[in-house]
Amino acid sequence: MSETSQGPLAGLLVVDMANMMAAPSAAMMLADFGATVLKVERPDGGDVSRHAPMRAGGTSVWWRLLGRNKEAVTLNLKDARAQKILRRILNDADVLIENNRPGKLEAMGLAPATLHADNPGLVILRVTGWGQTGPYADRATFGTQIEAMSGFAYANGHPDGPPTLPAFAIADACTGYLGAFATMAALWARERDPERRGQVVDLSIFEALFGMLGPQSSAYDKLGLVMERQGSRAPLSAPRNVYRARDGRYVALSTSGGAHIAHRTFAAMGREDLITHPHFATLEARLAHIDEVDATMQEWIGKHDADDIVRLLSEAGASVAPIYSIADVFRDPHFQARDLIVEAPSADIGPVKMQNVFPRLTRTPGAVRWSGRPLGADNERWLLDRLGLSRDEMDVLRRDGVI
Amino acid sequence: MSETSQGPLAGLLVVDMANMMAAPSAAMMLADFGATVLKVERPDGGDVSRHAPMRAGGTSVWWRLLGRNKEAVTLNLKDARAQKILRRILNDADVLIENNRPGKLEAMGLAPATLHADNPGLVILRVTGWGQTGPYADRATFGTQIEAMSGFAYANGHPDGPPTLPAFAIADACTGYLGAFATMAALWARERDPERRGQVVDLSIFEALFGMLGPQSSAYDKLGLVMERQGSRAPLSAPRNVYRARDGRYVALSTSGGAHIAHRTFAAMGREDLITHPHFATLEARLAHIDEVDATMQEWIGKHDADDIVRLLSEAGASVAPIYSIADVFRDPHFQARDLIVEAPSADIGPVKMQNVFPRLTRTPGAVRWSGRPLGADNERWLLDRLGLSRDEMDVLRRDGVI
Repeated sequence: MSETSQGPLAGLLVVDMANMMAAPSAAMMLADFGATVLKVERPDGGDVSRHAPMRAGGTSVWWRLLGRNKEAVTLNLKDARAQKILRRILNDADVLIENNRPGKLEAMGLAPATLHADNPGLVILRVTGWGQTGPYADRATFGTQIEAMSGFAYANGHPDGPPTLPAFAIADACTGYLGAFATMAALWARERDPERRGQVVDLSIFEALFGMLGPQSSAYDKLGLVMERQGSRAPLSAPRNVYRARDGRYVALSTSGGAHIAHRTFAAMGREDLITHPHFATLEARLAHIDEVDATMQEWIGKHDADDIVRLLSEAGASVAPIYSIADVFRDPHFQARDLIVEAPSADIGPVKMQNVFPRLTRTPGAVRWSGRPLGADNERWLLDRLGLSRDEMDVLRRDGVI
Repeated sequence: MSETSQGPLAGLLVVDMANMMAAPSAAMMLADFGATVLKVERPDGGDVSRHAPMRAGGTSVWWRLLGRNKEAVTLNLKDARAQKILRRILNDADVLIENNRPGKLEAMGLAPATLHADNPGLVILRVTGWGQTGPYADRATFGTQIEAMSGFAYANGHPDGPPTLPAFAIADACTGYLGAFATMAALWARERDPERRGQVVDLSIFEALFGMLGPQSSAYDKLGLVMERQGSRAPLSAPRNVYRARDGRYVALSTSGGAHIAHRTFAAMGREDLITHPHFATLEARLAHIDEVDATMQEWIGKHDADDIVRLLSEAGASVAPIYSIADVFRDPHFQARDLIVEAPSADIGPVKMQNVFPRLTRTPGAVRWSGRPLGADNERWLLDRLGLSRDEMDVLRRDGVI
């Protein structure tokens, strides 16, 4: 393959000894863009994501996604022989990604200071729920708690209903993006350091999600504002909500971008009278009479089909879109034209469709080369071919459950 | 300042000519970690984020956050003199970040091919809602549409309610994380390219959010699954929901991590009888009787205060956490110990509290140095001191509305 087809991170070696799903997401990003990512798993079952729900051919689609573009070896790191093998691999690696509770890496004889003594350039991305320090550092974490405590759930949902957790594991996923960035920043610093030193990156899943929630800290500090649940309404735009069309489909509508947008929207609905109506003329008036505004919108939208609404109100300059399920996404011509969904080869169930690599680097694009491989699929290639273990040694390690 | 205190990206020059908020978030990430980020704004009002709601001292907290650690100059890019100045700056830059509709950069005489002729190493991060190609490329976009069409809103909310848009601008924010990573990947590729070539990065906000929504594409492809709204319930764990405590506060609870977690939770509630109850004994049974399970949980939780529930059920191994608003986040001792919130100096209203830089790079940490500066605050430093314009030239440009 040409240099170009291997992606911008070709040549980097990343060891992913983490478990579903925040830290492995970061490793997936690096693999998507061409790094060699070695997934190190326990021989007895491997990564938790293999056994998660939504299984196809006995393996969860979670692993088929999170394991994509990675090479898979097994090592039981409770055994000293496995630790030794891992340390040999890490001597040549650029990055180690782990998500044990603070102190556990140290207990396995893999303390950062130990690893840096062998390989000073190693970047060690440590992913935990609450970070390596502070009173909660030792707590186990699930995404539920992160989403509960970040402020996300508090403001998500309707005013007359409870706080609502998100349906997607967004805290873990955004940690993947942020972890990939932080890893590259640390590698960049290493390349500019006369001593070529790596470092430890302390990445908290909570902080990754909290960092996405905008200026709420400043708004609370300076204005005393606490964002409350308001359904799909928003303080910046009115009408702005989700409405149900005649054909039963939902559409989302926003009229931000200037006063004329709302007026042109009313005109497109054949309701020029609203443009001068005291409850509809200005944003302030509409916000003050938001129930009436939403009822008026719902009445009109309920008499038309979703596709017609989107077409008509788009022409008026409103931000309007159908609410899509994944089935709708698959059918959409724009997403097809963008190759949003690609097929990844698997060893057992044929090609698996999954999201492409984002974003597109035009000169050195990333690519989906394969979906998550079977447990230990690359043991021979790594231990036999690369590290030079003999077949006899491999047999003993296998017999003892070390690999 | 020492090399260390300047962050891992010290020495990089990034030009941010984008507007609120996805692309400027990416530029903020680079600034947070030490890159010199020059924010280029229209002289008549500057970035939209300055005028967004939630204003303190006349300037929105959006700008105070998104503009942090950036230097601020004004250029009216409709004027050829401004274009020329920008091109001089870009000759020395590593990165250009923009979010015009496809073709607009070209119309301003700043086509990537033109910029690369002058500076082949430039990385050009182009952020749009739908990407540079495909049938929707020319459409204006607001976050509402992205969230509507990504599948997020479809699955967010309660089964008996409408799809629900998120309260936070998560599509824009995750684009910031992903854009910062992609920029570093392109810079990494440049450093390894014998010709030291930059490239265009085509970053779609839709794709950034869609990439965070897990293996839903594979689940739909292989299993025909479409995720429906289920409130705060989840298919992997039961009980898993948000409940209201006696003191009116809400708690989120999940019992994933093995059958014993749910059993120990019941025991902690003094309901050992449920461990062998046919509707409660197994995950399958609980999912089949989820209304009964949730009612039982709510009954017990409703008789206790949130803090006691969290303490008791945490000890049982459940994932349980209070639902926090931003006010609760500010008070939490762990977040205080982690310096989650820091104070950023401002020119006009004293220190502004905002989220810290995440994650923590232990050797070369990022830092919040200042909050978003006044419009044109760094014009003299850049145009006079750095580019060598005379005071007379500056006066003319100012008079003509070019700066």
